[in-house]
Amino acid sequence: MKAYIITIGDEILLGNTLNTNAAYIGEQLSEINIPVIKTSVVGDDNLSILNEIKLAAETCDLILLTGGLGPTHDDVTRKSIVDFFNTELIENKEVLEDIEAMFEKRKRKLTSVNIDQAKVPKIAEVIRNRLGTAPGLWIEKDQKIFVVMPGVPYEMQGMMESTVIPKLSERKDSEQKIFKKKMILTTGIPESMLYERLGNLDELLQGGKLAFLPNQFGVKLRISVEGDDDKELNEKMMEIEQRIRSKAGRFIYGVGDDLLEAVLGKLLLERELKIATAESCTGGLVGNLLTNISGSSKYFERGIICYSNAAKVELLKVDEDVIAQNGAVSQEVAMQMAEGVKSTSGADIGLSTTGIMGPTGATPDKPVGLVYIGYCDEKVCTAKKFNFGDDRLLNKQRTAQAALDLARRQLLGISLDD
Amino acid sequence: MKAYIITIGDEILLGNTLNTNAAYIGEQLSEINIPVIKTSVVGDDNLSILNEIKLAAETCDLILLTGGLGPTHDDVTRKSIVDFFNTELIENKEVLEDIEAMFEKRKRKLTSVNIDQAKVPKIAEVIRNRLGTAPGLWIEKDQKIFVVMPGVPYEMQGMMESTVIPKLSERKDSEQKIFKKKMILTTGIPESMLYERLGNLDELLQGGKLAFLPNQFGVKLRISVEGDDDKELNEKMMEIEQRIRSKAGRFIYGVGDDLLEAVLGKLLLERELKIATAESCTGGLVGNLLTNISGSSKYFERGIICYSNAAKVELLKVDEDVIAQNGAVSQEVAMQMAEGVKSTSGADIGLSTTGIMGPTGATPDKPVGLVYIGYCDEKVCTAKKFNFGDDRLLNKQRTAQAALDLARRQLLGISLDD
Repeated sequence: MKAYIITIGDEILLGNTLNTNAAYIGEQLSEINIPVIKTSVVGDDNLSILNEIKLAAETCDLILLTGGLGPTHDDVTRKSIVDFFNTELIENKEVLEDIEAMFEKRKRKLTSVNIDQAKVPKIAEVIRNRLGTAPGLWIEKDQKIFVVMPGVPYEMQGMMESTVIPKLSERKDSEQKIFKKKMILTTGIPESMLYERLGNLDELLQGGKLAFLPNQFGVKLRISVEGDDDKELNEKMMEIEQRIRSKAGRFIYGVGDDLLEAVLGKLLLERELKIATAESCTGGLVGNLLTNISGSSKYFERGIICYSNAAKVELLKVDEDVIAQNGAVSQEVAMQMAEGVKSTSGADIGLSTTGIMGPTGATPDKPVGLVYIGYCDEKVCTAKKFNFGDDRLLNKQRTAQAALDLARRQLLGISLDD
Repeated sequence: MKAYIITIGDEILLGNTLNTNAAYIGEQLSEINIPVIKTSVVGDDNLSILNEIKLAAETCDLILLTGGLGPTHDDVTRKSIVDFFNTELIENKEVLEDIEAMFEKRKRKLTSVNIDQAKVPKIAEVIRNRLGTAPGLWIEKDQKIFVVMPGVPYEMQGMMESTVIPKLSERKDSEQKIFKKKMILTTGIPESMLYERLGNLDELLQGGKLAFLPNQFGVKLRISVEGDDDKELNEKMMEIEQRIRSKAGRFIYGVGDDLLEAVLGKLLLERELKIATAESCTGGLVGNLLTNISGSSKYFERGIICYSNAAKVELLKVDEDVIAQNGAVSQEVAMQMAEGVKSTSGADIGLSTTGIMGPTGATPDKPVGLVYIGYCDEKVCTAKKFNFGDDRLLNKQRTAQAALDLARRQLLGISLDD
């Protein structure tokens, strides 16, 4: 099975919107070992879409389209599908009920354009949309599969996850070689240092493959192995993972889709510990990440975003003289913030951030990117210094990730060294 | 002149790398009014590239390629160009000197693969690369222009800026029409309701075009107009914008790349007001957004992430009985939170969020997605109810956006009605 991804939208051609949809679909298909041969982008125009579907159907047997399914005049994909398959639109009762339920829930009035969205091409099976009004379409004809999804990323992702990937996985070629991969997630070590630390890759991998995928949260290591015997491949994969862990274990916080905030949350839950945060430079991002996890109210007690020095003194009992002497961005203040939020909240752990995120705020001794992260629990009170880069948003993300990882390492008794 | 952009690279098909190059080129070409008809991505494979160039040359007269020009085994674009034009490679002295100078500067030893990069197709004019070793190519044949550039974004961007855009601008059809666009940003109204509110689009646009671009933060409206007279087009654009504002003004928070958190920040700064936040369900996201803006310390005083009821009572003076009677997710508690954070912090404005983000936490009266946002300033203390969806992360984002917009509307004296 070979895949062709078509993204529809003038805003993507014009460069106003990045084509994250094609990337997401490509990644998901590669997870189940379906090769993507080509992706393309065409505008919101019936003839262009129609021609592109024809072209795709000539070369591939799995064609995925996103975009142009909304309720307004510039959404023409459904018409192109009707034209291509020479079919007609019929109202789908289930879709209409979904749309009505969604409007009912949001207490909004249903409009005629929404009702029109319940009409689907006769030839298509509906992919239900849990997060929006436009249904997805699954069409099989002449041994080819056509999948049509909305362009809103989370709606498309919901359909891929709930329906498209499971259905495609069932179709997998039985003769195919077995291909396994595993993602190992690291943080707190740059790509080049991780590469050096792993040493000779041939020895490490013994026939397997390894890709380094860096981003601002860390470096993902993708291990892949291929062969005929499932059991052998599992063993080989485990051996490679163990060798990687023996060389870079302290930097590994998870595998696959694990999120560091969920890994830390699980640790806190298991140990029945509560955490409280005192954020200056991250401005609430650490709290935001922790509370992205459902059930976090069981271990996240509160957070103080102490952007002003007054807030640090009033709410966290940071010593005014210590701020005056060392500056708000200092090891001493980071420790007092962590200690202060722990004691005032009654939580078991206090975690703090203070730093200079840029572009302004630097002094001769304190450059943009300088950060201190503080941690206090019943036994330990410590703070670690970091030097990040020049970009404000990346600095916030790196600081939040480093704070979560510092708490993880403390709880697991892992050294904080680089 | 119609453009076709081809991006080459397995990593883009696999979704490991976002196709920022196509977006950048699309944006640059739209600035000089050259329409991009299609963009595509193919893998690092000679035959795929060759077929794609043929296809592009059949439909467009400006073909831009990026990627696959590096020094390693998987860089095959130059070979595809040689095959397509049936030409040969010859060493280019100027390019070789550039490469030698670059290695000299970096104190690195020149390798044979680098010397090989100085060979360019005989038919091509060289586009010099000041930031890397692979030269770009400019080829004209049969009234068509082919531009070949490296895939490293800053190398490609350097060539676009120094050579490609200036050369294309010279060619501009003197007969060509002027094209203008403007993005109007709305929030707090779903796409279908906005569409209805705008009414008859032909009357509204009078020959202009309008695209609806929805995401979880709101709906962007892209207006575009085309014609011969710059002044007339500016007037036409302004008239369309005014008609849109007269129908949906209260939902419009900005234009172009404006961020709501920056729009609100600017208002606060102008009025010399300080804001403090009390976040329950958003867990720090509102503070995080506000502090993404450089200089936000001038107007963001502090934030309280009061995830527990104890934090609401201790830090915000919310009445325990009011929580017991109405529940933490209620209009009364939202108002007390906003009032509490305002008075305890000494800020001019208190902004609060409380809600059920899901998937757990719902009760028979209080479904997932129920949210109250509170706002208090010197004169007003109010709270508004919202009903969002089922997805936890989207609910957090929608709540944060709604909170920022509620503060914006209050400051501007705009009705909070839908």
